[in-house]
Amino acid sequence: MKLLVKLAFFGGNYHGWQIQENALSVQSVVCDAARAVFGVYTAVTGCSRTDSGVHAREFFCTLEPAPGYNGIPREKLTDALNSVLPDDISVYSAKEVDESFHARYSAKSKEYEYIICNSRIPDPFLVGRSCLCRTPLDIGLIKAALPHFMGEHDFSAFMASNSKITDTVREIYTINCEKSESVVKIRVSANGFLYNMVRIIAGTLISVGEGKIPPDAIPEIIASRDRSRSGATMPPCGLYLNKVEY
Amino acid sequence: MKLLVKLAFFGGNYHGWQIQENALSVQSVVCDAARAVFGVYTAVTGCSRTDSGVHAREFFCTLEPAPGYNGIPREKLTDALNSVLPDDISVYSAKEVDESFHARYSAKSKEYEYIICNSRIPDPFLVGRSCLCRTPLDIGLIKAALPHFMGEHDFSAFMASNSKITDTVREIYTINCEKSESVVKIRVSANGFLYNMVRIIAGTLISVGEGKIPPDAIPEIIASRDRSRSGATMPPCGLYLNKVEY
Repeated sequence: MKLLVKLAFFGGNYHGWQIQENALSVQSVVCDAARAVFGVYTAVTGCSRTDSGVHAREFFCTLEPAPGYNGIPREKLTDALNSVLPDDISVYSAKEVDESFHARYSAKSKEYEYIICNSRIPDPFLVGRSCLCRTPLDIGLIKAALPHFMGEHDFSAFMASNSKITDTVREIYTINCEKSESVVKIRVSANGFLYNMVRIIAGTLISVGEGKIPPDAIPEIIASRDRSRSGATMPPCGLYLNKVEY
Repeated sequence: MKLLVKLAFFGGNYHGWQIQENALSVQSVVCDAARAVFGVYTAVTGCSRTDSGVHAREFFCTLEPAPGYNGIPREKLTDALNSVLPDDISVYSAKEVDESFHARYSAKSKEYEYIICNSRIPDPFLVGRSCLCRTPLDIGLIKAALPHFMGEHDFSAFMASNSKITDTVREIYTINCEKSESVVKIRVSANGFLYNMVRIIAGTLISVGEGKIPPDAIPEIIASRDRSRSGATMPPCGLYLNKVEY
């Protein structure tokens, strides 16, 4: 049996999604919760390997309990999982899927959001939930840069330089930026993302908003495939996985 | 010299505003920050003794540095204080006030907000920032109860039973409730509040929304001056001091 589970988590207390030694991960907590509910070891596969401190408003994983699992009624599964999960991870639904379904490879698109607190004075309520940028950002400049990211490109210039991935072409479907009071939100959806891609796009757009990179330089930066040409990798605490489409 | 400082803090890491032994308070942290900036002991008086875990989007305190304080330029004071304060406390402004001004007694009105996450499934992003109420609340019933709180009343029935205050009459200026998705916000402004008053009003309105207390019973509960007639004291993490008017 393979179940597709929809969840959300506040990433501030976790060293990312993926199980690792000597660090608490969301995957390991979900794995323990599933074992408690099914009474047997349960394989957990996530839709994304979110980094340490990254949040997810919507995240999917599959659960595959080993043979001999409890016959817990499907309609009680969500409540059962939530009853053993900590407050910062919640399960919203669980449904059976085909064995061929893969939480990561079956995803058609994902949307991420990056939140910037654009203020000289930090907002105590956005600590660990945004990055702080004290320089006033020119949203007009950022908006002028956005269309250049649209479509299919080799995004090597927007990939962590230590990444070993060779297929670096991705297609961005939507990208937008909105500002409300001192909060700037950048939202990007794509068929997939390279390692740190959204955090580097955010850093590049911040440089654009600060007047350090002209909006028209984006096509050239993309074409260069040179990581040193794009902006900084912004901290993980401002990043949210917003939506996953299958 | 007496300075009026406007600040905001996320209360989750503090045992309330007031200095106490063996527990970290916002007042003690502000006191240490002021000492660092002025180079001398600085008396700190707050506008409210917020409880452990209560948040403030707007909070005022006065700073009175002892004689011999640093002649730091007034326009640099905000930045200087923020540079020594932790991320979860921010100073927005500082201005000189008359010696007769009192952060607490000079306040004409205060506004508090209580946030309820009204969902069967907890929202990981509202943990420590709201209270969770799993029963679906009928906002129509709550709204019908609100007008009964308006105006001047003896609010003894909405005061922590261990409070020793004898003048229990307060005037509520505004009270409203709004729901957006699963978030319910109750906002109350008054000339002053009794101990736990907003948290007990919130608990009473939750009972109203659950259908346990009819909206029309509110005048009778107020008139009874009996704490056992009103609702539960809701947890502090959902409470925000929103505004203070002088």
